[in-house]
Amino acid sequence: MAIQQTSGLSLILRLQIDNTASFSDVASAIGEAGGDIIAVDVIHVHKDHVVRDITVNVHNEAHRERVVESLSKRNGIKVVNVSDRTFLVHLGGKIEIQARTPVKNRDDLSRVYTPGVARVCQAIAEDPSKAFQLTIKRNTVAVVSDGTAVLGLGDIGPEAAMPVMEGKAMLFKQFADVDAFPICLNTKDPDEIVRTVIALSPGFGGINLEDISSPRCFEVEERLKEALDIPVFHDDQHGTAVVLLAGLINALKIVDKRMEDLRVVVCGIGAAGVACTRILKSAGVPTVIGVDRQGIIEAGKHYENPVWDWYAQNSNPEKLTGTLDDAIRGADVFIGVSGPGVLTVDHLKSMARDPIVFAMANPTPEIAPEDAEPYVRILATGRSDYPNQINNVLCFPGMFRGALDARARDINEDMKLAAADAIASCVPEDQLNEQYIIPSVFNKQVVKAVSRAVAEAAYRSGVARRVPKFDVSAE
Amino acid sequence: MAIQQTSGLSLILRLQIDNTASFSDVASAIGEAGGDIIAVDVIHVHKDHVVRDITVNVHNEAHRERVVESLSKRNGIKVVNVSDRTFLVHLGGKIEIQARTPVKNRDDLSRVYTPGVARVCQAIAEDPSKAFQLTIKRNTVAVVSDGTAVLGLGDIGPEAAMPVMEGKAMLFKQFADVDAFPICLNTKDPDEIVRTVIALSPGFGGINLEDISSPRCFEVEERLKEALDIPVFHDDQHGTAVVLLAGLINALKIVDKRMEDLRVVVCGIGAAGVACTRILKSAGVPTVIGVDRQGIIEAGKHYENPVWDWYAQNSNPEKLTGTLDDAIRGADVFIGVSGPGVLTVDHLKSMARDPIVFAMANPTPEIAPEDAEPYVRILATGRSDYPNQINNVLCFPGMFRGALDARARDINEDMKLAAADAIASCVPEDQLNEQYIIPSVFNKQVVKAVSRAVAEAAYRSGVARRVPKFDVSAE
Repeated sequence: MAIQQTSGLSLILRLQIDNTASFSDVASAIGEAGGDIIAVDVIHVHKDHVVRDITVNVHNEAHRERVVESLSKRNGIKVVNVSDRTFLVHLGGKIEIQARTPVKNRDDLSRVYTPGVARVCQAIAEDPSKAFQLTIKRNTVAVVSDGTAVLGLGDIGPEAAMPVMEGKAMLFKQFADVDAFPICLNTKDPDEIVRTVIALSPGFGGINLEDISSPRCFEVEERLKEALDIPVFHDDQHGTAVVLLAGLINALKIVDKRMEDLRVVVCGIGAAGVACTRILKSAGVPTVIGVDRQGIIEAGKHYENPVWDWYAQNSNPEKLTGTLDDAIRGADVFIGVSGPGVLTVDHLKSMARDPIVFAMANPTPEIAPEDAEPYVRILATGRSDYPNQINNVLCFPGMFRGALDARARDINEDMKLAAADAIASCVPEDQLNEQYIIPSVFNKQVVKAVSRAVAEAAYRSGVARRVPKFDVSAE
Repeated sequence: MAIQQTSGLSLILRLQIDNTASFSDVASAIGEAGGDIIAVDVIHVHKDHVVRDITVNVHNEAHRERVVESLSKRNGIKVVNVSDRTFLVHLGGKIEIQARTPVKNRDDLSRVYTPGVARVCQAIAEDPSKAFQLTIKRNTVAVVSDGTAVLGLGDIGPEAAMPVMEGKAMLFKQFADVDAFPICLNTKDPDEIVRTVIALSPGFGGINLEDISSPRCFEVEERLKEALDIPVFHDDQHGTAVVLLAGLINALKIVDKRMEDLRVVVCGIGAAGVACTRILKSAGVPTVIGVDRQGIIEAGKHYENPVWDWYAQNSNPEKLTGTLDDAIRGADVFIGVSGPGVLTVDHLKSMARDPIVFAMANPTPEIAPEDAEPYVRILATGRSDYPNQINNVLCFPGMFRGALDARARDINEDMKLAAADAIASCVPEDQLNEQYIIPSVFNKQVVKAVSRAVAEAAYRSGVARRVPKFDVSAE
């Protein structure tokens, strides 16, 4: 998962306001320091003062200090406490385990636990596939990370990765009613990660790998897919790739081009770059050229970096050499999963007609949207404060919902392509335009469309163990 | 966890009853076959028939068939469907993951996930102990099993063990508001189990080992306790031992004996037997004699079985030899964690005054309670259908609640002894009698008393990382 942007802070200031001061003093003190008041609550009223909680948005921590200072300077206003709403929402963690039925009495106890549970255990022992009916396996995904590539923060360790994985579990539940549980590992060794995930897999219906750094993520995912008969999906790779493809499908409708004719430059050849390239090829794009810091990944050349080495065998059919300047000349599409400032206006000018740019570097895109706008037809970023946000949240909930519904053994290329089509289809043709190629993350149609398409694709491609409820034969 | 008894079945029979038949026909058909009607619901009424769900208790599966047959023979009654309430409650699993706050809009999303979550991650990266405040670690326990010693069923594998672990997670939540998640491992290799649990531990505040067969369970627990700085507790060993000690503490009040004077026979030297012996010694019992199939475990003798070998070094100070007949002569207490029929009336007759018998073999005790009653002063079993049930549910929820509240690094002997005292104290002195030495599993005082006592003991013994809320200095 990639960090989208630096967030402002939302504070709750607890103020004691003497009767000698007024709320307008508070408001002006906050306003003068540039804070935005979002909400005001009265906590209690005394004879000579009132205590209020004021929710205030500020830009950053320095700005917080200025707001607090501005308030503290006023006569009759005392700052009792400053809380940070983001930290408050994390206190004690963001998810919990709930029983699906209460245990009210001895009778309930004897059904969910001993002695009644023994018959259920025996039924599964006789036929382990019954675990899909009689245990949480049917609906449960492990969100597994080693904490080595978290947001834009890098290798911050397993404990520090937990808030992201918990957040992901919240989104899994809220968007797709998938029960996801975070497992953060204190090992970075691919052998150990693979062994651990295999060992803990029996109770899970799927494995969502998350924030594992490249190139280890490729090996870990590949070996786990091989070893397990439940879907394994590295979201940083495939989530990004699926949503990118969805955006591209819609973008092509606007510029009236076909996948089969495209020339695409992918800039930044790590986990996401490789996955984007793979899905583009699966979608029929003939020419993908990879560029990293040292320039174009040359076709057929041997690289020490195993990812680049794979890339050299699987891209750049025209055997281009040189830099991004050379790669981008005449390209239809630029896909950036690299860093800020990589793309220039001159690059854009050298592209083919109606340039399509996915500048997904985080938090700062490869080119400032304001600079790019005059020279591109369609621009998408990873940020929520510009149109066309490429956000993995559009993919993973529906992807796993569909895979679980079909009791899929795998998440394969067909399922990913189907998910991309489904996401693209959530933007109605008559509303499609340069500013709207990708649906909102809060569009409730997305999960339904993606899960259905994924389950159908699982069935068609032979990895489903259960016929989804809808009528597949009618397809 | 040990199986308590074989359960009757609770069925839901969906019946189509024609107008030519009446409900009394249904009732008599079920009654004649010996079924107990528990509840009756109308599903829908047609012009010429009514569909009803009848909840019926039967003894076992053969009995179910007899009830269904009896109904089917009647004119005008059709058995549409037979559901098993125990299986119904397991459909789709018994627990789920819930968000503790909803994600309603972009603002919420940016706090629980990117970009806001990054600041929380950074705070933990700078100080990993903050994971106890800002993640689920504070309240979350892994319930880990390899499925090798599940109930009385033996090695049934990880998938089949899941219903027990899910049931345990339900009880953790319901009784003690602990979030417990089941992890069933598909390895039986102690090295691999230890490695896996260490690898997945960062997000957890405690590890509850469950249903791992002896002698591997000892090694696994010992190595994990050594490696981790969170509590590791093998419930089959220590849960049983703690509840047994609680029962014994109260039993001694009735017979007016002291721990320091006791002579105790432990029959069945596996996981639970060793743990019972250890806690008895910690509680001050001078003489514990172990008996297994080959007879008394002889002091100082070398045994191939490493558990027995340990036992030989740590029991039987009088260096007795022989069989149970020899061991039990003059004993004050018999503790059975072995099998049915091991204990005879002659054995009971040879015990010291006021024999105390814990016959905990499951599902059938070491001696039938009816046979034992005339010859013992106090009898406890593992069964819920006799007085004095020794049930681990009295221990594990409060034990982990207390350990988590104190952010304990370990669950040590002091904490176990404190838990036993706390459980014992939940039977008021003025109500204490031969039939009531142990509180009910639904006694709400138990978790409060145990968790408080455990947290205090953690603090006193130096393994707490947080001063519990109550006033420890007032102790």
